[in-house]
Amino acid sequence: MSALKGATAPIYFGPFTVTPQVFHITPLTFALVNLKPILPGHVLVSPRRVVPRVTDLTPAETSDLFLTVRRVGRMVERVYGATSLNIAIQDGVHAGQSVPHVHAHIIPRKAADLDHAGGMDAVYDLLDGDEGDLGRAFKKVVPTEGHDQSTEAVNQNAASSGRRSRFPIVDNDARKPREEDDMRAEADMLAREMENEPLD
Amino acid sequence: MSALKGATAPIYFGPFTVTPQVFHITPLTFALVNLKPILPGHVLVSPRRVVPRVTDLTPAETSDLFLTVRRVGRMVERVYGATSLNIAIQDGVHAGQSVPHVHAHIIPRKAADLDHAGGMDAVYDLLDGDEGDLGRAFKKVVPTEGHDQSTEAVNQNAASSGRRSRFPIVDNDARKPREEDDMRAEADMLAREMENEPLD
Repeated sequence: MSALKGATAPIYFGPFTVTPQVFHITPLTFALVNLKPILPGHVLVSPRRVVPRVTDLTPAETSDLFLTVRRVGRMVERVYGATSLNIAIQDGVHAGQSVPHVHAHIIPRKAADLDHAGGMDAVYDLLDGDEGDLGRAFKKVVPTEGHDQSTEAVNQNAASSGRRSRFPIVDNDARKPREEDDMRAEADMLAREMENEPLD
Repeated sequence: MSALKGATAPIYFGPFTVTPQVFHITPLTFALVNLKPILPGHVLVSPRRVVPRVTDLTPAETSDLFLTVRRVGRMVERVYGATSLNIAIQDGVHAGQSVPHVHAHIIPRKAADLDHAGGMDAVYDLLDGDEGDLGRAFKKVVPTEGHDQSTEAVNQNAASSGRRSRFPIVDNDARKPREEDDMRAEADMLAREMENEPLD
């Protein structure tokens, strides 16, 4: 079941079926809530077509992706009471990409929001450590269906990236993968908020 | 003097005149070499219009900015022999933005390129620490001219951001701001490479 009215075809994030987590969709792009958000409102925006690199996108896909990043970013900043956004793409395995499907992280920020975790820039440690490892996180929880990219490819990707664990101290309870019900509820809420968000 | 044929009007990055560092320009966007690159080929892409936030961009500016990010990213990945790219925007002061003018960092990556500095994810420590503080770096070296945003605003921005110094060990010599001649030579080289880069 999807948060989106009338959406029926499954939506893939790499090899994973993420339909219940998707809160916004355009002809070329979708946005989904995160299994292990680094901060409240940390969401992902991806092209509908499963391609690993930004250069693999068509110009139309590139424009639509970033127009969606801009609009979704404005929405989560408002809804989560933030004042800034980190926008980051790990474009390729040597940049830390763990799921071989282009995705922009959008992370709402406010003053002192990561003081407990080591300060403002701890967002990057979180993003790039095990806690932000989307490949590993999705593999554990989200059911997959038949698709042309295997979880093996994701695992190989993560293994060859040589990622290191460098975390500041965080509340472990808060970092557990969320239940699917929680994610669906958040996706429903954000889908409604997107309807209120100006197009431009 | 500019690396760009026929470009005469000064180009601003926040309050700074960066014309000699600019290697690519479109009607809405420009790309410049960096004063203190974190890795070889670390460049910035900005809208021509000096606005602080992504949401301040028009849809046309947003599309052009990211089509330019895609094309410049492909070029620097090729020219610097990289295999991946980090693409990051600090969108607002609480996300670590130090110059109040939208800018995407593009950082070419390859295997083991930051092993000397603490590993793959050290790129973010470098990006967000003093070494990556564009406001402070540009203030030291690049001459400014009359413009509607003051360096005071930049300094206030950096001061209020509460940024912390968390650096891995790096070669100090390699981290000094570059001479303007070096930057102009790199901008000339990259301007020529952009002429060879397919439009799509």
